[in-house]
Amino acid sequence: MGARRESDPQDLADRVQAGDRRALARAITLVESSRREDQPAANRLLELLAPHAGRSIRIGITGVPGAGKSSFIEALGNHVIGQGHQVAVLAVDPSSSISGGSILGDKTRMENLGRRPEAFIRPSPAGRTLGGVTRHTREAMLVCEAAGFDVVLVETVGVGQSETAVAEMTDMFVLLLLPGGGDELQGIKRGIMERADLILVNKCDGAMQAAAARSAADYRHALRLLQPRSTHWQVPVQTCSAHEGTGIAAAWEAIGRFRAALTASGELAAGRATQARAWLWSEMAENLIDSLRENRAMQERVAAIEAAVAAGSAAPRVAAAELVRIFLNPGKAGP
Amino acid sequence: MGARRESDPQDLADRVQAGDRRALARAITLVESSRREDQPAANRLLELLAPHAGRSIRIGITGVPGAGKSSFIEALGNHVIGQGHQVAVLAVDPSSSISGGSILGDKTRMENLGRRPEAFIRPSPAGRTLGGVTRHTREAMLVCEAAGFDVVLVETVGVGQSETAVAEMTDMFVLLLLPGGGDELQGIKRGIMERADLILVNKCDGAMQAAAARSAADYRHALRLLQPRSTHWQVPVQTCSAHEGTGIAAAWEAIGRFRAALTASGELAAGRATQARAWLWSEMAENLIDSLRENRAMQERVAAIEAAVAAGSAAPRVAAAELVRIFLNPGKAGP
Repeated sequence: MGARRESDPQDLADRVQAGDRRALARAITLVESSRREDQPAANRLLELLAPHAGRSIRIGITGVPGAGKSSFIEALGNHVIGQGHQVAVLAVDPSSSISGGSILGDKTRMENLGRRPEAFIRPSPAGRTLGGVTRHTREAMLVCEAAGFDVVLVETVGVGQSETAVAEMTDMFVLLLLPGGGDELQGIKRGIMERADLILVNKCDGAMQAAAARSAADYRHALRLLQPRSTHWQVPVQTCSAHEGTGIAAAWEAIGRFRAALTASGELAAGRATQARAWLWSEMAENLIDSLRENRAMQERVAAIEAAVAAGSAAPRVAAAELVRIFLNPGKAGP
Repeated sequence: MGARRESDPQDLADRVQAGDRRALARAITLVESSRREDQPAANRLLELLAPHAGRSIRIGITGVPGAGKSSFIEALGNHVIGQGHQVAVLAVDPSSSISGGSILGDKTRMENLGRRPEAFIRPSPAGRTLGGVTRHTREAMLVCEAAGFDVVLVETVGVGQSETAVAEMTDMFVLLLLPGGGDELQGIKRGIMERADLILVNKCDGAMQAAAARSAADYRHALRLLQPRSTHWQVPVQTCSAHEGTGIAAAWEAIGRFRAALTASGELAAGRATQARAWLWSEMAENLIDSLRENRAMQERVAAIEAAVAAGSAAPRVAAAELVRIFLNPGKAGP
């Protein structure tokens, strides 16, 4: 094919698969781009890489404020690299648009891990809604997998529905908690405990060890009130200290047991197929809704109807049917 | 306007608002109809009734298997009628298509309540997906409100995501539990405890009273692990016996306190406006997706691409963009 431009999707895809870091970063920037003119190349790139993606364990990680997610990810990442793996760390942080940069953009975090050639850390795409962050994180995940990363850690800062989004794009969901906070002070978001496949009480070191053990027991008790997500997996509650490096190997072992159990039961593969199908249909719905939202001719009408619906003076179905009819058949008159 | 046909929307709307039961039942059947030729009349009817809807407290009720939801609803309904209210009972039961009729269709249930003029019981629309059931239950709710029912009880049998759907169409979510089941035997679905605004341990009678008190304490303890949904409301855990009629008045009082607290804080009105807007956009997305799904020219293509995506050989975004592009611009060629 002769000499190619740097932004040539085929060339970029080749270099991503060859493990070229600059190409990997550029590839993710391309798929995250919202510029219309980038879409054909971004789509082509994803087309080329998708068949080479998927060969990783996708782990979602969330935690209560102060649970030490980043130091845990650094500790786990280093341990996993020591086991011969390559680790990609992605973030789902819709709030990063507010702080003007992702939590992972903070240079003081994961310094050591970030410097290792076997690791790749990517901040959350800034200035996007959760939907946008989710979409682009899913795609960054595919690109990283195509680049040979066999462990993908997706961190959520737990803003809004981001845990659910992360749980729906990963194979396993890990919840980090603090010692001694067996109460509302932990601010565990509603529904999160139920999504966890592994619960870790971090900061189990020094004076906190006893409290950490008590908390773990508390959470084991609370878990008994909830229906297990899989009949093939009982959610472990373990303690660890990212600071001292204790319990990290045990956490990685639990992840391995989870992967083995749900691979054997077929739930891992089934879960991914379901996630992919759901993703396709939600992408289609989002595409369609975006086209309607961006349609100049529709905007005034939509705003007026939305206000009437919120005020309760219009029925959503009627309003929706009318708006969609006008959008799809701009020519035709009403029934 | 002269003499009108029975199915004339204006006439039907007038009679619904006048409290005519046969008209109410016919109106709901009309809005639930999936026959294309019924849509204009159904839409017109909703247009006429929507402005008169909304003046009720919308209460979602779920419970673990055997918690006695229907006897509780019968007891609560009769108590509430005694307080001078009119009660509509609707069901969200996607499984009713399987059993061939809704749980509420079962004549042996809520017999006494069903016979009272101040009550209206409507089974779940059969043979529909959760989305369809949800949509039609929301609309049946509007019709009942326009007919003057000021208390709407929406029952879910807890199939799939139906609790979430019910929580998202109601002002308050009530969870019924059993005594002595402070463990996985209760089979509480993941995320449900977190959605509850009021938890009732039913069947607190006879030999079960002590166990019911213990369970209530257990659940209070478990709730302490979860972040409250509103800073203006602490979720009460109460016991009751639909069988003996104890704790029913107290449950209704808790509902009244909840309504007062969240009305004062503005959360009730804000929640409804948010629900309505979300409903509008989801109706638009559903309408658009349905139009794409039902598009003959698209079907083969969609099936092939969906399989590729599930197999991981195609990237959802690329596939979705292509399908939507072809759908919206059947004429134009690809980029």
